[in-house]
Amino acid sequence: MAPNLPEKQWAMVIEKTGGPVDYKEIPVPKPGPDEVLVNIKYSGVCHTDLHAVNGDWPIPTKLPLVGGHEGAGVVVARGDLVTEVEIGDHAGIKWLNGSCLSCSFCMQGDEPLCPKALLSGYTVDGTFQQYAIGKAAHVARIPKEVPLDGVAPVLCAGITVFKGLKESGARPGETVAIVGAGGGLGSLACQYAKAMGLQVIAIDAGDEKKKMCMELGASAFCDFSSSENLVKDVQAATEDGTGPHAVLLVAVNEKPFQQAAEYVRPRGTVVAIGLPAGAFLKAPVFETVIGMKTIKGSYVGNRKDTTEALDFFKRGLINSPFKTIGMSELQKVYDMMQQGKIAGRYVVDTSK
Amino acid sequence: MAPNLPEKQWAMVIEKTGGPVDYKEIPVPKPGPDEVLVNIKYSGVCHTDLHAVNGDWPIPTKLPLVGGHEGAGVVVARGDLVTEVEIGDHAGIKWLNGSCLSCSFCMQGDEPLCPKALLSGYTVDGTFQQYAIGKAAHVARIPKEVPLDGVAPVLCAGITVFKGLKESGARPGETVAIVGAGGGLGSLACQYAKAMGLQVIAIDAGDEKKKMCMELGASAFCDFSSSENLVKDVQAATEDGTGPHAVLLVAVNEKPFQQAAEYVRPRGTVVAIGLPAGAFLKAPVFETVIGMKTIKGSYVGNRKDTTEALDFFKRGLINSPFKTIGMSELQKVYDMMQQGKIAGRYVVDTSK
Amino acid sequence: MAPNLPEKQWAMVIEKTGGPVDYKEIPVPKPGPDEVLVNIKYSGVCHTDLHAVNGDWPIPTKLPLVGGHEGAGVVVARGDLVTEVEIGDHAGIKWLNGSCLSCSFCMQGDEPLCPKALLSGYTVDGTFQQYAIGKAAHVARIPKEVPLDGVAPVLCAGITVFKGLKESGARPGETVAIVGAGGGLGSLACQYAKAMGLQVIAIDAGDEKKKMCMELGASAFCDFSSSENLVKDVQAATEDGTGPHAVLLVAVNEKPFQQAAEYVRPRGTVVAIGLPAGAFLKAPVFETVIGMKTIKGSYVGNRKDTTEALDFFKRGLINSPFKTIGMSELQKVYDMMQQGKIAGRYVVDTSK
Amino acid sequence: MAPNLPEKQWAMVIEKTGGPVDYKEIPVPKPGPDEVLVNIKYSGVCHTDLHAVNGDWPIPTKLPLVGGHEGAGVVVARGDLVTEVEIGDHAGIKWLNGSCLSCSFCMQGDEPLCPKALLSGYTVDGTFQQYAIGKAAHVARIPKEVPLDGVAPVLCAGITVFKGLKESGARPGETVAIVGAGGGLGSLACQYAKAMGLQVIAIDAGDEKKKMCMELGASAFCDFSSSENLVKDVQAATEDGTGPHAVLLVAVNEKPFQQAAEYVRPRGTVVAIGLPAGAFLKAPVFETVIGMKTIKGSYVGNRKDTTEALDFFKRGLINSPFKTIGMSELQKVYDMMQQGKIAGRYVVDTSK
Repeated sequence: MAPNLPEKQWAMVIEKTGGPVDYKEIPVPKPGPDEVLVNIKYSGVCHTDLHAVNGDWPIPTKLPLVGGHEGAGVVVARGDLVTEVEIGDHAGIKWLNGSCLSCSFCMQGDEPLCPKALLSGYTVDGTFQQYAIGKAAHVARIPKEVPLDGVAPVLCAGITVFKGLKESGARPGETVAIVGAGGGLGSLACQYAKAMGLQVIAIDAGDEKKKMCMELGASAFCDFSSSENLVKDVQAATEDGTGPHAVLLVAVNEKPFQQAAEYVRPRGTVVAIGLPAGAFLKAPVFETVIGMKTIKGSYVGNRKDTTEALDFFKRGLINSPFKTIGMSELQKVYDMMQQGKIAGRYVVDTSK
Repeated sequence: MAPNLPEKQWAMVIEKTGGPVDYKEIPVPKPGPDEVLVNIKYSGVCHTDLHAVNGDWPIPTKLPLVGGHEGAGVVVARGDLVTEVEIGDHAGIKWLNGSCLSCSFCMQGDEPLCPKALLSGYTVDGTFQQYAIGKAAHVARIPKEVPLDGVAPVLCAGITVFKGLKESGARPGETVAIVGAGGGLGSLACQYAKAMGLQVIAIDAGDEKKKMCMELGASAFCDFSSSENLVKDVQAATEDGTGPHAVLLVAVNEKPFQQAAEYVRPRGTVVAIGLPAGAFLKAPVFETVIGMKTIKGSYVGNRKDTTEALDFFKRGLINSPFKTIGMSELQKVYDMMQQGKIAGRYVVDTSK
Repeated sequence: MAPNLPEKQWAMVIEKTGGPVDYKEIPVPKPGPDEVLVNIKYSGVCHTDLHAVNGDWPIPTKLPLVGGHEGAGVVVARGDLVTEVEIGDHAGIKWLNGSCLSCSFCMQGDEPLCPKALLSGYTVDGTFQQYAIGKAAHVARIPKEVPLDGVAPVLCAGITVFKGLKESGARPGETVAIVGAGGGLGSLACQYAKAMGLQVIAIDAGDEKKKMCMELGASAFCDFSSSENLVKDVQAATEDGTGPHAVLLVAVNEKPFQQAAEYVRPRGTVVAIGLPAGAFLKAPVFETVIGMKTIKGSYVGNRKDTTEALDFFKRGLINSPFKTIGMSELQKVYDMMQQGKIAGRYVVDTSK
Repeated sequence: MAPNLPEKQWAMVIEKTGGPVDYKEIPVPKPGPDEVLVNIKYSGVCHTDLHAVNGDWPIPTKLPLVGGHEGAGVVVARGDLVTEVEIGDHAGIKWLNGSCLSCSFCMQGDEPLCPKALLSGYTVDGTFQQYAIGKAAHVARIPKEVPLDGVAPVLCAGITVFKGLKESGARPGETVAIVGAGGGLGSLACQYAKAMGLQVIAIDAGDEKKKMCMELGASAFCDFSSSENLVKDVQAATEDGTGPHAVLLVAVNEKPFQQAAEYVRPRGTVVAIGLPAGAFLKAPVFETVIGMKTIKGSYVGNRKDTTEALDFFKRGLINSPFKTIGMSELQKVYDMMQQGKIAGRYVVDTSK
C-alpha cells in the first residue's frame, strides 16, 4: 500500500433510496487481498445510477451508497495476492465490480451472470468518490495512451453496446438496425457497429439525430416520429427488402420492443439492451416460429468484451462525446436525466 | 415415366375452407422436369392438416385441396432433370414440398424460409392421395429397411422436434425441459433428446403421461396440473437448481410460452415450436436482459435435418407409436383432433 | 432464348494439356433447362487457369477446353425452368459452375464440396469465350452499378479470400496475419480483412509491397526476406505479443505453411488457401496440442459467400487493381505468370 | 484449518529427472489464502507422469517432484479467501492445478492455455502423496455419491477425451473415428462419444480390442493391423461412404496422425490429443484445401469441461476399468508402462 494515501476523500453519497445525493468527506477504503484501490479521476454518469437512486429496479441497493460504475483512474494500492495489476497502472471500475470466478457462469466467461456478482454503485460502493475498490481480476486495464475522461463512458455504455452487437450474431457486411441510435448508447452502438464491419440502419426521431447518425456512419436513417409504417421503412432500407439481420434495442420505452420482431429478417435476432421499467418483450408466436426469429437479452460485457471494446476505443474508432462537470454537481445531472434533457454523456471530475 | 401408371386414384379432397373432406377419385398428376411422383403408401395426420381444413392460420390454402404432409411411399416416376432419385427408391413427401434453391435462405440451408416455398397439403396438393408430386431435391430419402407406416409421423413431427432441439443449442449432457412432453410431438422430442445425449425434464399433466415420459427416458417429470409452483419445481429438477439449459415448447396453449422464460437458466434458450392460434410470446425485459435469456421460434427442419432425423429413426432410437386407419376415414381423425381426444399419432393407409 | 444470338463466337481453346491456347471461332452453346447463357464481357486470369493448361493438378481437365472462371457479363438466354435470373441481368460465372444441389454437402451450403461439382474452365468450358453457360442457381448476381471489368477478379480471388477470412473464425477487432499480402490474392485479402473490422499484419518481401500493404490498411508489415526471426517479429506485431488470432496463407510456396503454426496464438487458426504443387502442411504434434491450434483448408466460397463478397465490392470497400488485355493475347499473360512476372491481376476483354 | 492434521505424510518423490521414485515421509503442506488442502485417497497413473519422470517433454519439471495429477480425496483445510469449497467436500486435483484467472485465455475459459498455469505433478507437487494442495477455483467438485477410486482416472483421461470430442465439433448422430480406441484414453473416448449421441468407428488392432470396443458401444471396428487399406475401410464404415465427421487421435505413434486427414470426410475435423514424442502432423495442402479439412490440437479440459465430464460419470454412463495398487508400488506401474504392458488404468491407494 502506498504510504502516503489520504485518510479521507470526497464522495457523493445517498443515505436512503430517493436521494438526495450529498457531497461529503468519507474514509478512503482499504483493498482486501484480491482487490485494488483506484484513484478515480473521472466517472461517467449512466441511467442506471439514477435507477439506483430512485430504487425502481427489482434488486435493492446497498445503503448508504456511493453510486457510479464508469470510473477511470490510477491504481494506488493492491492486496497481497494481486499479481496481474501494478501500482501506477490505469484502470477502470465498471458495473461488474467482482464475481466469484468459480461458479458455472464465471467458468464460461459469463461472470455478469454470477449469483455473487458485486455491482459497483449498487451492491458495493462505486466510483462517485476519489478512491474506489475493485476486485483485481475485474478492473478494466486501460492503456496509458487513452484519455481517462473520454474512456469513462466507454466503460459501461461502450462495452454494453459492443457486447450486444456480439450477441446479435451479425457478421461483417450484414445489417443491424439500432433503435435509439441518436442517444448515448445508440451513438456508441453506431460507431462500434461500423468498426465491426456492419451496415447500420439508425432508428430515431428528428433531423438533428439523423444528421448525427449519418455522420457516425449509418447507411440509412428511419424516423419513427414521422414514418407512416416503420416496419416497411426499415425493411425497405435493406439491400433486399427483407429486413435487417439484427436489431439492437437501446431505447428506453416499450413500443420498439414489440415492433422489432416484425421488421427483423427471418432468422434474424432482436437484442434487448435498454431496460424500460416494467416493460415486456412481446411477439406473436406464429410469425416468430415461421420466421425462425430470435429475441434475446444482452446484459453488460464480460472481461474479454471489456478488453476488446477498449481496444476499439484506443485505436480511435470510437468517439464518445461527453461534457465534464464537477463531481459535486452530480445532482444537476440526475435532474436533467429525470427530465429527459440529456444529450450525450456527462462525466464527473472527482477533483471538483 | 413408368408406362403402367393408372390415370385415376383415390384422394381426400376439401373443396372449401371448413371442409368437409371428401373421398373421391381424381387424376394422377404428372411430374415436371425437376419433380418425382411418389406412390404414397401411408401418411401421418398432423394438427396442421386440421388448421388447413379450418383455415385458421394467417396464410390461405390452395383450394380445392388435397391435404397431408407426412407421406411415405415409393418413387414411380421422375422428370428429365432428376438424377439423384431413382424409380423404386423409398421417399417421403413432407411439409416443405419444394423451394427455389436460389434465394438467400435456400443458399444457407434455410429452405423452409424460402419466400417461394411450396407447402404440401397447403399451397400444393399433399399426401392424402395415392400418388403425390414432390420436388426431387426435397423429397426425403427413406432407407429401404425402414417401415413406411412407422416413418410417416417422423417426416413432420419427428423432424420438427429434432430441429427444435438443434436450435436450442443444448449440448450433450445438458438439460432440456419439454413442455407438452406427453403429446405426439412431445413423446418424439423426449426420445430425440435422449438420443442426442440430453437430459430431459418432461412437463405435462397426469400420472399416465408421467409414466410414459419416464419410460421414454425423461430424468424428471413436472406435473403442471398439480404443481403449486411450476417455476420452482422445474428449476429444482436440475442438477444445480438453476433451471434447464433449454426449453422446448410443443404444447398448444399460451401459458407455457410465458412461464418458460422464467424457469430457463440464465443464458438459456426457450424454443417455441407449437403454434397455438393467436398466441403471444411474452417476457419481462428486465429479467430477460439481466439473465441474457433467448427466446426463439423454430419451424420445420431443412433437408439436412431430415436426413439426420431419419437416421436416428433407422437406428431404432425413436419409437413413434401410431394407429393405422383407412384414408377414407380421415374425417374421423379430424373430429377426434377437434375434440382433443387424440392420444398418439394416426397414420392413414392410402389403399383403403 | 433471344432470337438474334450469333451462331459463332471467338474463344481461347486448348486442345491438349500443355497448350498452346488458340484463338478461334467456335459455336455459341445453348443453355439447358436449368442453365443461363452469359455474354461474357470480361474475364480475369487466375493461377488456376495456368494449372489447367499445364495439367499439374491431381484432377484432370476436360479436353478440348475453354479455360477461365472469373467471367462477368450479361444474361442473354435462359432455360425453361429458370425463374430467378432474368434476361439482361448482369451475372458472373465463377469456378463453381454448378452442383447437384441435393447431396449432403449442397444441403449444408457447401456446394464447392459437391462430388458432382462442375468447374468452369476445368471440367466444363469456362469464360475465355464470348458466350458461356452457367447453372442458373450458381451464377453470381452482379448489381448493375458494378463495373464488369473490375468485378471479374473478385469473382474468384475476392470470394476465395473472403471465404478464407470467414473460415478463420477471426472476429472484428482481432488480428489476422496474411502471408503473401502483397500478391493478387493477398492485396484483396488485406482489403476484405479491413472491411470486416480485422487488424492486419501483412507478411511479404520488399519495400514496395510494404508500401502497398500499409496503404491497403495493414497495421503492421513483416518482411520475410529481411527478418532474422519471422516468428518473433510476427508475434511482436500483435498487441499482447502472443501472435495473431488467425493466419491466412495465400502464398505459393511451402515454407510459410510450416511457420504459421508456430507464430499463430494459442487457440488460433491457420487457414491454407494457396495451392503450391506438392506441398505439405506440417506442424509438431506437441505444440499444436498444448496450444490448441487449428490448421484448416479453405477452398472457394459458396453462393452465399459470393453474394456477400460482391456486396463489399459494390460498397466501394474493395479496390482490385487490374490491367486489361485483349482475350486473344491470353498466352502472353500465361507466359508472364509462368515466369512469376505478374504484379496485380490481368483481365481479358472478350471483344478483342 | 482442521487442528488435527498430521505434520508428516507419505509421498512418492523423484529427486532428479530419470527417477527413481522414492516412497518417503515429507511434511504436509499448508494451503495459501486461495488454496485448499486435499487428503488424497486415490490417484490415477497417466502416461504424462512417466514423461515427467523421464523428462522427455519440452517443458522442464520442478525438482524434487511429487508426481500425479488424477487425485481424488476430501478437502481438509482451506485458505481465508476460499468460499466456494467446504471442508469435507470431495474434490479432485487434476493436471491444471491453478491459473491466473486474469489473462486473456483465463477470461475466455481457456485456463489450460494460461501462461502462468500450474501443472500438478509437473511444475507443482501433485497427487502421489496423502495431502496435496490445489487452487480452490480449480479443484474438481466431486459429488459424494461418486467412488473416489473409480473417478480418479476420469480426472485426466476422461476429461481430456471429453474435451477432444467437444472440440471435434461432431454433433449428435454424426460419426467419429477413434484411433487407439482400445487403449486407456480410447476406451473412455468410446463411452463418452456414445453418451454424447455420436456413432463410433473404433480403430485399433486385434480381436480382443475389437470385442471390447464393440461392447463399449462402437458401431464399427477397423483393425489397422490387418486392414489392406485403412483409409478405404474407415470410409466404408460410414453410412454414405464419405468418411467420419471427425477423428480423435489418442494413439501414441505418428502414422495415424498422417492417415486421419485422408479418411476424414470433407469439412471434417481431425483432433490430435495423444502426444507421441517428436511426432509431426502432416497433410497434403491440395487435398486439405479442396476438402476443407481441419486438423487441430486439443489439450486438457477446462473447469467447465471437468464439471460436465464428471456429470456423465456420475450418471453411470462411463465405466472406467482400473486396477488398484498401493502408492508405494508406483515404480512397478511405471515399469509396465515403459514396456507397453499396461491394459486399462492403474490407480494408487495413498494409504499403502
